[in-house]
Amino acid sequence: MFSASLSTQLSLRPGILELYWGQPDPRLLPIEAVREAATRVFTQHGMEVLSYGKEAGPAALLDWIRQRVQHNEGQELPPGETVVTAGNSDGLDQVCTLFTRAGDVALVESPAYHLAIAILRDHQLELEPVPVDEGGLRVDVLAETLRALKRAGRNPRLLYTIPTFQNPTGSCMAASRRRALIELAAAESLLIVEDDVYRELAYDGPAPPSLWSEAPRGVVLRLGSFAKSLAPGLRLGWLNGSVEQVARITGCGLRASGGGVNHATAMVIGEFCAGGAFEPQLERFRAAYGARRDALDAALGRHLPDGCRWTRPGGGYFIWVALPAGMDARELLPVAERHGVAFTPGTRFHHDGGGAGALRLAFSLYTPDELEEAAQRLGSAIRAL
Amino acid sequence: MFSASLSTQLSLRPGILELYWGQPDPRLLPIEAVREAATRVFTQHGMEVLSYGKEAGPAALLDWIRQRVQHNEGQELPPGETVVTAGNSDGLDQVCTLFTRAGDVALVESPAYHLAIAILRDHQLELEPVPVDEGGLRVDVLAETLRALKRAGRNPRLLYTIPTFQNPTGSCMAASRRRALIELAAAESLLIVEDDVYRELAYDGPAPPSLWSEAPRGVVLRLGSFAKSLAPGLRLGWLNGSVEQVARITGCGLRASGGGVNHATAMVIGEFCAGGAFEPQLERFRAAYGARRDALDAALGRHLPDGCRWTRPGGGYFIWVALPAGMDARELLPVAERHGVAFTPGTRFHHDGGGAGALRLAFSLYTPDELEEAAQRLGSAIRAL
Repeated sequence: MFSASLSTQLSLRPGILELYWGQPDPRLLPIEAVREAATRVFTQHGMEVLSYGKEAGPAALLDWIRQRVQHNEGQELPPGETVVTAGNSDGLDQVCTLFTRAGDVALVESPAYHLAIAILRDHQLELEPVPVDEGGLRVDVLAETLRALKRAGRNPRLLYTIPTFQNPTGSCMAASRRRALIELAAAESLLIVEDDVYRELAYDGPAPPSLWSEAPRGVVLRLGSFAKSLAPGLRLGWLNGSVEQVARITGCGLRASGGGVNHATAMVIGEFCAGGAFEPQLERFRAAYGARRDALDAALGRHLPDGCRWTRPGGGYFIWVALPAGMDARELLPVAERHGVAFTPGTRFHHDGGGAGALRLAFSLYTPDELEEAAQRLGSAIRAL
Repeated sequence: MFSASLSTQLSLRPGILELYWGQPDPRLLPIEAVREAATRVFTQHGMEVLSYGKEAGPAALLDWIRQRVQHNEGQELPPGETVVTAGNSDGLDQVCTLFTRAGDVALVESPAYHLAIAILRDHQLELEPVPVDEGGLRVDVLAETLRALKRAGRNPRLLYTIPTFQNPTGSCMAASRRRALIELAAAESLLIVEDDVYRELAYDGPAPPSLWSEAPRGVVLRLGSFAKSLAPGLRLGWLNGSVEQVARITGCGLRASGGGVNHATAMVIGEFCAGGAFEPQLERFRAAYGARRDALDAALGRHLPDGCRWTRPGGGYFIWVALPAGMDARELLPVAERHGVAFTPGTRFHHDGGGAGALRLAFSLYTPDELEEAAQRLGSAIRAL
């Protein structure tokens, strides 16, 4: 299906349906439209593409982001509250550099997006898990954890969370928890870093409002990304925060020295979006991934044995499956691979050793027919264990 | 000459020759050739451009960098000793994240490239200056400084240096000092971060060998960049280090999560370079900037009063002028602007308050005729002060 040279990160073994990869389907990527935008922007603004860019990002892209946020969330986004990033991983990396200090505590979801955790570790932050369930982050547990940390003289600096269509659980934080979280963070001076990468991939109507949109300015830094709504190779995203927080980022040494990050690509995508290409592409993604979500959800219902539980996600790429009591996903994996299907064991997303009884399935890479087959193989593997 | 919208960073006041900006001349940037490379790479490898890239960078670009290093420095560059960066500012930022800890001491040149200093500050490193003269960094003073720091119980972690065509002085570190520096750093476990951004802009034959090429592996991280040899808006460069050091970078959370940095642009420039477009473009830059260097050097000789001193640089963008004794460049600047010429006062490059008697002139933006005029205006301003 894909050649090995397509990307080192994506490698697919023959005969195995790899529901391991949380990546877009390369066949759906908007190659033509991005190429055309690149040609146009080089022709019309070539000198600007190749010169140092504005610290906050190119005006055309910033304007489009402002319009998109207003369209999605019904909020005016004043100038100075947005800075273009080189994707959410870069945004998180920069937030750690500029807003934390080695030894600070970072609160993380459990299970969490494991590769973001690696970024927090690189910044020598101490990690403290807070459980996630079907309703998202357990804010009551967070409150207890904060109290315990402060009693112990430690400095809880930030919370990293994906409240909307979380990776790996697919869960959405409930509205009441969102309100409670914002209140708690404001009261405790805890910085919320909201990774909002799956917002545009909502399959059952609009995604819930972001934490950022509901919080007083300064409480939440929201990381928005083109990785899932357009293409991951672009390495392009943005960050919303207060004027002061954004000024800290646009005024950092990295941007003072090098100008706007990922500038040439930001110019191309500014042109792509301003030219009206974003919405039609997003509709193609939503239609394809929504159908895959439906297909996998239904197929799991047909093929998984009693005792397996999962929740149909409203968006994103993932279904999180709890296995029958006592079953360990790490032991299931080699059996599943012999049956021709792979997944990510839940332990991968728990930095504290939990998650053995769960697994993550990504439905983004495969067609409905393939997902039907994958669910059947998974069911057989579970019965065979 | 340039429109205000070209870049926020580059803004030129009418009537003033702005020898302030250390930037390439936008009129010399290879717009057509980069656009053609973008078109080719999207046509032939569009899916790869838009998917997550390899952590170390695209193979075509890494291959070309290896060949270029061998061509320039006569050294085999084994696989695993190079990682693509989003430019030297990004490379330095990542080195700080992965190889330092808040409170470590960073040794910096005095005068130094001031915007890199801002990156070190963002990482909460403590700065210690080491003087630079016509022969580059004073390695004898560095040795004393290291001893004093260790006696005081502090941790000198890295030295940030531009040994070749330095910004702001234009100086090249003498060969004997390079050897002494490498020996000292190896003995003291001091990491040398060599910013090698001006290497390709050598006007009098090849640049001297890099510190990296002459040191045992692990002592020097060399930051190479396309900002000056191709275009700054690309935000593209690379880092050379030991296999272990490079593995720490390619294995960092940022790349584990997002794949190769600045991937789409790296694919375009891999195609640009592999297609043979790098050398002819570099020859255009060298011819233009070399002629500008000659013109400004000669014009300063004709127009500056006795008591001014400067050294003709072998490459890069800058001439560093020492003013007559007792003159302060900050006081000269408004007078010079009234005469229609601007520069950067030397104090800008000394984070410890020195440098009042010197100024930096950048010759990259202007034609020989304009530089002749600029030198004449500067001479008049100095005489008028």
